[in-house]
Amino acid sequence: MIILGIDPGIATVGFGVVESRGPDARHISHGVITTDAGLRLALRLQRIYTDVGELIDTFHPDAIAVEELFFNTNITTGIAVAHGRAAAILAGEGRAVPMFEYTPLQVKQAITGYGRAEKHQVMDMVKRLLSLDALPRPDDAADGLALALTHGRNANSLLTGRGNAKQTI
Amino acid sequence: MIILGIDPGIATVGFGVVESRGPDARHISHGVITTDAGLRLALRLQRIYTDVGELIDTFHPDAIAVEELFFNTNITTGIAVAHGRAAAILAGEGRAVPMFEYTPLQVKQAITGYGRAEKHQVMDMVKRLLSLDALPRPDDAADGLALALTHGRNANSLLTGRGNAKQTI
Repeated sequence: MIILGIDPGIATVGFGVVESRGPDARHISHGVITTDAGLRLALRLQRIYTDVGELIDTFHPDAIAVEELFFNTNITTGIAVAHGRAAAILAGEGRAVPMFEYTPLQVKQAITGYGRAEKHQVMDMVKRLLSLDALPRPDDAADGLALALTHGRNANSLLTGRGNAKQTI
Repeated sequence: MIILGIDPGIATVGFGVVESRGPDARHISHGVITTDAGLRLALRLQRIYTDVGELIDTFHPDAIAVEELFFNTNITTGIAVAHGRAAAILAGEGRAVPMFEYTPLQVKQAITGYGRAEKHQVMDMVKRLLSLDALPRPDDAADGLALALTHGRNANSLLTGRGNAKQTI
């Protein structure tokens, strides 16, 4: 199955696309959607909505994995990120792609087997799991790949009866 | 000018439609868009997106006034409201309607002339300004009307050179 992982944001939306087959995964693409801070909020949202739609039209994912939001630091940023996340979700729903959300802890757990893993450990595992020569850049794109890999592992576990409950958005 | 006021939310989105002519305003419609808590988030967002689009197609507003978000209480609710707000904004942007945001304080100031007015004072003034027989129900719909009236007063002030700076979304 093809999985699109999305690390939501308003200035930068990270994405990663992988093909997941059983325990294995193949890298297809990664990158970021960026919106200029000088643009009106509505235009930034429309850009995210349109670009996520184009990603779906390009890669035809069977599932989309989106990071769940936690606000423990900057609430103003959190509001903006939540707006951007909604734009991405609307794009996915408009194309009827099943969507799933994962917490950062679930991503760390799925990728490294350890929920308190350091960021660089997650990145190193993403690189290894996808047989990449270098760490994906920027971090948001790597986070998109990690989310896609997380769903691949979760979906695989579900098929074999060992999976966590999955939560659709 | 026709103004659509939107009180954003995820379970309930209030709306009010008024026609503003100089200092006067005429009531056109008010109500709420509701989404079932049992629905997936993506479906709730799509409902808001679709219904706000239908409101625009029905009333052809010249402007949309949306409440600005503040999170000082429940952050989890705030995240959900921000998602719903983004869906409404995307609907407006998709139809190229100019959008404006107002804080609760700006609404109170515009409607009652006093930024620390009580909620019921704002509601009473909405009723008076629109020559309504009864207070609009539910509160979210009345808030939508108050937002629309606020933009009418602001836009009028701008035309006569006495207005506050307006902020597009």
